Amino acid sequence: MLKRRRATLKDVAESVGVHVSTVSRALNPETRHLITSDIVRKIAAASRALGYIPNTAAYSLRTTRTKIVGVVVPDITNSIFPPIIRGVEDALMEHGYATVLVNTDGGMEREAAMIEALAARGVDGLVIASVHRDDGRIRDLATQGTPVITVNRRMDDPTIPSVTSDEEDGVRRMLTHLAALGHKNICTIAGDQTISTGQRRHDAFMQIAPELGIEPDPANVVFASDFNESSGERCMEELLARGVEFTAVHCSNDRLAIGAISALRRRGLSCPADVSVTGFNDMPMVDRIDPPLTTIRIQQHKVGYVAAELLYEQMRELSSRPVPQHIVLPVDLVVRSSTAPPPAIASKTVRRTVKDRT
Amino acid sequence: MLKRRRATLKDVAESVGVHVSTVSRALNPETRHLITSDIVRKIAAASRALGYIPNTAAYSLRTTRTKIVGVVVPDITNSIFPPIIRGVEDALMEHGYATVLVNTDGGMEREAAMIEALAARGVDGLVIASVHRDDGRIRDLATQGTPVITVNRRMDDPTIPSVTSDEEDGVRRMLTHLAALGHKNICTIAGDQTISTGQRRHDAFMQIAPELGIEPDPANVVFASDFNESSGERCMEELLARGVEFTAVHCSNDRLAIGAISALRRRGLSCPADVSVTGFNDMPMVDRIDPPLTTIRIQQHKVGYVAAELLYEQMRELSSRPVPQHIVLPVDLVVRSSTAPPPAIASKTVRRTVKDRT
Repeated sequence: MLKRRRATLKDVAESVGVHVSTVSRALNPETRHLITSDIVRKIAAASRALGYIPNTAAYSLRTTRTKIVGVVVPDITNSIFPPIIRGVEDALMEHGYATVLVNTDGGMEREAAMIEALAARGVDGLVIASVHRDDGRIRDLATQGTPVITVNRRMDDPTIPSVTSDEEDGVRRMLTHLAALGHKNICTIAGDQTISTGQRRHDAFMQIAPELGIEPDPANVVFASDFNESSGERCMEELLARGVEFTAVHCSNDRLAIGAISALRRRGLSCPADVSVTGFNDMPMVDRIDPPLTTIRIQQHKVGYVAAELLYEQMRELSSRPVPQHIVLPVDLVVRSSTAPPPAIASKTVRRTVKDRT
Repeated sequence: MLKRRRATLKDVAESVGVHVSTVSRALNPETRHLITSDIVRKIAAASRALGYIPNTAAYSLRTTRTKIVGVVVPDITNSIFPPIIRGVEDALMEHGYATVLVNTDGGMEREAAMIEALAARGVDGLVIASVHRDDGRIRDLATQGTPVITVNRRMDDPTIPSVTSDEEDGVRRMLTHLAALGHKNICTIAGDQTISTGQRRHDAFMQIAPELGIEPDPANVVFASDFNESSGERCMEELLARGVEFTAVHCSNDRLAIGAISALRRRGLSCPADVSVTGFNDMPMVDRIDPPLTTIRIQQHKVGYVAAELLYEQMRELSSRPVPQHIVLPVDLVVRSSTAPPPAIASKTVRRTVKDRT
């Protein structure tokens, strides 16, 4: 049976006939210029032939840096996150960092355990997409000196830097679009209020709607427990069960909107003929669903990319604590087919449908 | 300005009033039983209070293991991959491994550079979802002793272990479904033949179609350059331009099918009324698109999970080279609304439409 052993620096040195320190210098981009290019070429060739893999563990011990950044997301299979992660990775790779990815499934306890595990590996910094508005564990890490940034979401604590999207402007554009179509009775399916996106989008709705002549009534507001399709379905059921009159439903994200449309369809109602429905995020594929979704486009890749760049700046200046930055990226309204003028009879249709069933 | 310094083992030891080696034993799950539980609790509390982070670099140098596995995908934003990655991560986390993710964007040169970068970090193994049928770099790594497994795809070289789905059975079930609906003129949009999924699905189509009384004509076959929507659109345009008669199009994956449906629609043709279109993979959201896609469901999470388990077995037995395993997971047919019986006049409609435009 073959005993497998990785080739060492010594193996490379012996094969070329030079000292180990020469091989070490030749393979390090920062010291390579000290060695003649002929020797560098020979060492590189021998290194490849022997399958020598430089060990970063030694570098880590020497510098106490690992050149690894932890990326914490609720769930990579939620399609809002992959473009953000890709943005993070694209930026960090340019600086020679690798990213370790963990999924928290939204729970703060699991998040704490995952971050603990990352910290145990000695990551140089953390990009956190799973953050809640209040999160003591992340504040502690930052206080103890670990470079941290939150992405897409932010904490209430202003000392933790963040890169997010302009939620307020997104809500304003969407409500302006609905008002311009003639909608007056607009319900909202709000997101989780312990998360900044849910809270900020909802606050914006409550503040901006009256400016546009839309008076939000508590009966028109329903809170989703999760940012997903089944939660959207339950919320739409709840609105229909209340018997309120509405011609449009403003949802806090795309997945809630997709669920809301499904629930309408099950009741024999059509989107947008009976009820207009809007999303937020413009996640992949919402242009292909039935009906293609009117939504707010956030710059998913850029949010991740910019967050990683800011984190890199933090990681480089380990001795000084920079003033925490909060970058807010602009958003766009994308009008597709899930919004239309309200039918004259839409509100009555909803009401009658609900009464027929209750 | 505050100089930031990570708390050390010594800081924890001094704070509790014990020797450094006691702290070290208490924090290591494998040696914790040697210390009284009272002391373990005190050390754990002090460690938390001081924000002590055990350094894995020392462990890595001692064992030459990093407890990190590299996961190589073409592009995380392609929604087929996140569930596979999640499966890999779920399995490896149970064994205390972290996953470093890299994107190759499908290019073999970039893949080689990414794998080089991972190897330089000293990963303990690699899960490769980006693999081409022939890939010398990956064979070299395996030969040199790096545990490697390919997932969802496989190499022609049988010495590289893999976990894939039953492509042949998937194609058989789909063609049987189309034949049962009454389709006889079936075209196929085949995938990249340098990738096992593309090649195996196409070979299966060419072999199984005649068994079902469907004679594949070279004019009915078009090869996509990429597994994506725009490639699917181009291929459908090509089939329409050829003027062949067909009532169904069998696509090598879901993204090609989505593109094919878009191209039909642009020509004023309806799916499935004029032409049935089928996918492969059952990737997220294809149940929500218009029309919901008939496809083959592969076990995305499980493919990743099982691959990670096999890799773990390889990594544990570093001294012996195990017999390479190839696990093939079963698939399911999922019938939705993109398939229907052929219209009596569908083929003529296609022909006439093409002629009208050319």
